[in-house]
Amino acid sequence: MSNQPQKKDIAKVPEPTLRRLPWYLSNVKLLKQKGEQYVSSTQISKEINVDASQIAKDLSYVNISGRTRVGYEVDALIEVLEDFLGFTDMHKAFLFGVGSLGGALLRDSGLKHFGLEIVAAFDVNPNLIGTHINGIPIFHSSEFVNKMKEYDVHIGVLTVPIEIAQQITDTMIAGGIKAVWNFTPFRIRVPENIVVQNTSLYAHLAVMFNRLNFNEH
Amino acid sequence: MSNQPQKKDIAKVPEPTLRRLPWYLSNVKLLKQKGEQYVSSTQISKEINVDASQIAKDLSYVNISGRTRVGYEVDALIEVLEDFLGFTDMHKAFLFGVGSLGGALLRDSGLKHFGLEIVAAFDVNPNLIGTHINGIPIFHSSEFVNKMKEYDVHIGVLTVPIEIAQQITDTMIAGGIKAVWNFTPFRIRVPENIVVQNTSLYAHLAVMFNRLNFNEH
Repeated sequence: MSNQPQKKDIAKVPEPTLRRLPWYLSNVKLLKQKGEQYVSSTQISKEINVDASQIAKDLSYVNISGRTRVGYEVDALIEVLEDFLGFTDMHKAFLFGVGSLGGALLRDSGLKHFGLEIVAAFDVNPNLIGTHINGIPIFHSSEFVNKMKEYDVHIGVLTVPIEIAQQITDTMIAGGIKAVWNFTPFRIRVPENIVVQNTSLYAHLAVMFNRLNFNEH
Repeated sequence: MSNQPQKKDIAKVPEPTLRRLPWYLSNVKLLKQKGEQYVSSTQISKEINVDASQIAKDLSYVNISGRTRVGYEVDALIEVLEDFLGFTDMHKAFLFGVGSLGGALLRDSGLKHFGLEIVAAFDVNPNLIGTHINGIPIFHSSEFVNKMKEYDVHIGVLTVPIEIAQQITDTMIAGGIKAVWNFTPFRIRVPENIVVQNTSLYAHLAVMFNRLNFNEH
């Protein structure tokens, strides 16, 4: 018998579910602040306008069971959701490209509360190398492979200019990075076993501008 | 005859299309740097792994036509895409909640290159009120309604704690904000005519952690 989790225990949870679970978490945290001890999926449903049956289905991926009539225990649900979403483990990351957005992310200590700790950043700008932002050291990009040996890092945050987005991604992966959080508007290509999470603020802006424009005419 | 665009001219473009168009834009910008003058959807397709027919369909929303065999003119395509995506107009915005993420967004001058200018921020922290970040003034939240008269703003960026996310949203909308860029993990409720763009970094982290965990077992 092994203590390692087995493949079947780690479900590949559908992305829409993973995107909704943080809504439930923030909602249940609010209920806790209001002094509630139990919460039902019907209650959450009323607050956030998602079907109660969908909520119950999403929560079925999480290892918690509700009690008939009273629902889920608030404290237990928060703990289990934070753990399930990976917010209680600290995942170390390197950031590549300390430009405007990269620098902003280094200053956002809030990511730590959700399980992401950026431990070092890389750039080629001589004015940045050797300095710190928010306590995080900035190294020359050529030091990446060395630093991979020093830190236990699996995640790379990509905030470089689009011209070098693919090249830096390839370097990251060759160095052992397993997941790329891509903030560039560039569609990077990676091998099948590498995780990519695209967060293009500019694509979100484009959607918002289009909808706003549509409503105003 | 009126010069105003008519409702039918402003198509409600499908969200997946709006999310892909910035990929094409960044790709075509790269081709321009490499000295290319024409680009076909087949060429873009090879670079970014999206079907050429899908690309042609997406580009059909944009007012540009390709020429048989040579494809789209690179300069024209960049111009038309940037314009279509709203990146060439400057959209003014207020930011609500100058915490860690809010402060980081104020420091990200990159948003300006994609059509968003944060012109003022609001908070209740006495240490922040009256100061500037990256040249952007921070006012007390109670001044919001006054400042709406002073600035021509339609967009509100929401980076407050979840406990007050709904309340601040309601205040924004009552004051005349037409679109909310919601960075909180809280699912805000708004009237039908108000645009909401959710960008929860934490939900993206949850997806990335789950996929990474899945791959590692």
